[in-house]
Amino acid sequence: MSGEEKDAPDLKVVIQIAENPEKGINSVLNLLKEMKFKEVEVVFHQEAIEAVLNPSLVSTLSPARVVACRNSLKAKGINEEKLPLGTIVVNAGVAEIVKRQSEGWIYLRV
Amino acid sequence: MSGEEKDAPDLKVVIQIAENPEKGINSVLNLLKEMKFKEVEVVFHQEAIEAVLNPSLVSTLSPARVVACRNSLKAKGINEEKLPLGTIVVNAGVAEIVKRQSEGWIYLRV
Amino acid sequence: MSGEEKDAPDLKVVIQIAENPEKGINSVLNLLKEMKFKEVEVVFHQEAIEAVLNPSLVSTLSPARVVACRNSLKAKGINEEKLPLGTIVVNAGVAEIVKRQSEGWIYLRV
Repeated sequence: MSGEEKDAPDLKVVIQIAENPEKGINSVLNLLKEMKFKEVEVVFHQEAIEAVLNPSLVSTLSPARVVACRNSLKAKGINEEKLPLGTIVVNAGVAEIVKRQSEGWIYLRV
Repeated sequence: MSGEEKDAPDLKVVIQIAENPEKGINSVLNLLKEMKFKEVEVVFHQEAIEAVLNPSLVSTLSPARVVACRNSLKAKGINEEKLPLGTIVVNAGVAEIVKRQSEGWIYLRV
Repeated sequence: MSGEEKDAPDLKVVIQIAENPEKGINSVLNLLKEMKFKEVEVVFHQEAIEAVLNPSLVSTLSPARVVACRNSLKAKGINEEKLPLGTIVVNAGVAEIVKRQSEGWIYLRV
């Protein structure tokens, strides 16, 4: 076995969910059970964007942060003001993912 | 907000499009609108390979470069000589993605 | 062309296969033909987990290692003891992918 149980308190991870949000969210929860992180952001975009309308998503994923892509919200006609408290909106989910990696965050697509 | 608007002139990004090329290309364009890069390569392979036949793709994605996977072209019976001018062909798209990361490029799959 | 033919004996790569295992395995084989690596791990999870039941998978992918996600095995009701010799099982495939990246491995999803 490869030690994925160890604490990793300095790690920062940015996770992309572009489709199948149920599977993706489940994978994020499995990840959070296995490892400790300094920061985790879960970026929802493309087909998966509607998942951010779920009022319990922010608490389900906490302490990971829920990030929504504004471009994807617009494409689906979702009003930003309808989003649950705690949801972070960025102009482009893909730019957030690239920016975080440029800051040293690990990238995972689930 | 997390600052994804800032210039990032030293960044190099290799982007993988393996399926749904329309969505993928749209995400690349959104990325290019948000951030500045030193170099961007978009690697088309697997189901998305046929997108490289579009004669306007090279100019649509410019200054990002269009890279086509030779293995995927062969699998679809596409003659390389039919590809629009400006398309770069590599033996294996996945090797290109790994090689670029080994050179410090950021990876994104859209 | 961009030199993806060169030897790269110090590279370590962790590859995620979450769906379409046939396409993913084919891409891994194409990668192994193009480049040399110090270590390669192929992590099967989500919909792709059943591929690890194939008794020839371990030898097909060798010298890349076959890693199976225990969460995904449980979700599909697959008994771990049925897995072919040489298959490595980890609690969470996504944690393995993140951990390997934290150790400097390159990430690829196929």
